[in-house]
Amino acid sequence: MAGTDSSKILELSPAPVVVLCEPQLGENIGTAARAMANFGLWDLRLVNPRDGWPNERAKAAAAKADHVICRVKVFERLEDAIADLSLVLATTARKRDMFKPVMGPDEAAERMFSQIGAGEKAGLLFGRERWGLNNEEITLADAIVTLPVEPAFASLNIAQAVLLLAYEWRRAARKGEALPFDTESGAPASKQEITGMFAHLEDALDAAGFFTVAEKRPSMVNNIRTMLGRAEFNAQEVRTFRGIISSLERRHERQKPEGNKSSGGSEGNGGK
Amino acid sequence: MAGTDSSKILELSPAPVVVLCEPQLGENIGTAARAMANFGLWDLRLVNPRDGWPNERAKAAAAKADHVICRVKVFERLEDAIADLSLVLATTARKRDMFKPVMGPDEAAERMFSQIGAGEKAGLLFGRERWGLNNEEITLADAIVTLPVEPAFASLNIAQAVLLLAYEWRRAARKGEALPFDTESGAPASKQEITGMFAHLEDALDAAGFFTVAEKRPSMVNNIRTMLGRAEFNAQEVRTFRGIISSLERRHERQKPEGNKSSGGSEGNGGK
Repeated sequence: MAGTDSSKILELSPAPVVVLCEPQLGENIGTAARAMANFGLWDLRLVNPRDGWPNERAKAAAAKADHVICRVKVFERLEDAIADLSLVLATTARKRDMFKPVMGPDEAAERMFSQIGAGEKAGLLFGRERWGLNNEEITLADAIVTLPVEPAFASLNIAQAVLLLAYEWRRAARKGEALPFDTESGAPASKQEITGMFAHLEDALDAAGFFTVAEKRPSMVNNIRTMLGRAEFNAQEVRTFRGIISSLERRHERQKPEGNKSSGGSEGNGGK
Repeated sequence: MAGTDSSKILELSPAPVVVLCEPQLGENIGTAARAMANFGLWDLRLVNPRDGWPNERAKAAAAKADHVICRVKVFERLEDAIADLSLVLATTARKRDMFKPVMGPDEAAERMFSQIGAGEKAGLLFGRERWGLNNEEITLADAIVTLPVEPAFASLNIAQAVLLLAYEWRRAARKGEALPFDTESGAPASKQEITGMFAHLEDALDAAGFFTVAEKRPSMVNNIRTMLGRAEFNAQEVRTFRGIISSLERRHERQKPEGNKSSGGSEGNGGK
């Protein structure tokens, strides 16, 4: 989904830190950086990246998330990478024999949001491509985050795990805020315009012989009004719809000499 | 996050259809299939894939999501790909000049969940790598779904967009269900065990001369109980903690001849 608005200035607001423990492939560091950037995260820390740092493959895979890549910090020990954080959550797909609280990504995001809102720093740990975090690393975390994946197909790559947690962070942080864009719904139609439109349609249908059974007319009119009412036409759309009716009416009038079998009329025979 | 449990049998429950319009790269088809599999989606349809079908690169990128890849259906026209669906949502990151409802992924998932729960079929449209869906394609949808990305860095690849919507689907479909695993918290400690542990600790601290100011003892005891209480020890952990106290007590006793300067005692001098 292409859609970056380059007129928007990137703001680095307080957000969770992402710590990758011993990442092996530069590509994964890059795609994780990109996933962070998608949802406003920017502080990426690496513990012992296998291929060192800087890493050209990471840069290439980051797809212009330069503001994340250029801020990457590298550490030898996880303890140092998380030293300034006061809340650390470890992501893992496997159950651990540890008495640590386990939470879903939504609860994790809420926890980080309260912590960060209070001026503290919070971070997420992600493990190696092959086998995730080891138990010593998880022991350093306050809680475990796990994703509600299909148990028979649970393997998520690092960038995808980062993406889901970054997405939940943004949801928690922007609760109640509007979507990036919304429907331009136009000036709403007044009730007068709506009832005028219904009257126009019903007159046209009367003229076309749509209501073949007189006693069914009221309920059919109600159904039509309900059905069209759900579309919530705006003023312009009411005009468009009246144009459609007028146009069909004239077609009908043109066909009148040939009988009453226009399509508009025949649909009425169902008496629904 | 490695963690697929191969003892679990994959069940194909009713779930949203994913339609990719004119995908260009086989890799993206494969990674989209994998993202679907992570959250229980399995019906993937392609409209005019640039490199035809089957596609070896797609298969390789799908990382064993064979149950998705082997079910892929290919169509020439989007109209045919969605013919059996009764709810179609178009994903897009760009604002369109169209009077279509716009919703976030959570609302989209709820809508699809009610539709599918009622025995209907629902689907999600994803556009081309370069420029997404065109307006004619969006016109065929009931509503637009957009993701709450950072506007200054909004570019998501197809697999990531599929992943987020599949994740929200699973959240909506499994609302209230447990996480894939939870803390094994062990047999909870009884209050008798807890108060026994506190008594043991406080006796040990008395013996060690921890409470240097007698009138501060009650509030210090309260603070210690509160502090340790938050850890919610289980029965085994109470035993472990009492073992720690006993062990330190003995150390203290051994050191007694040399004076009262053990570390346990000196920490008490803060009188907090």
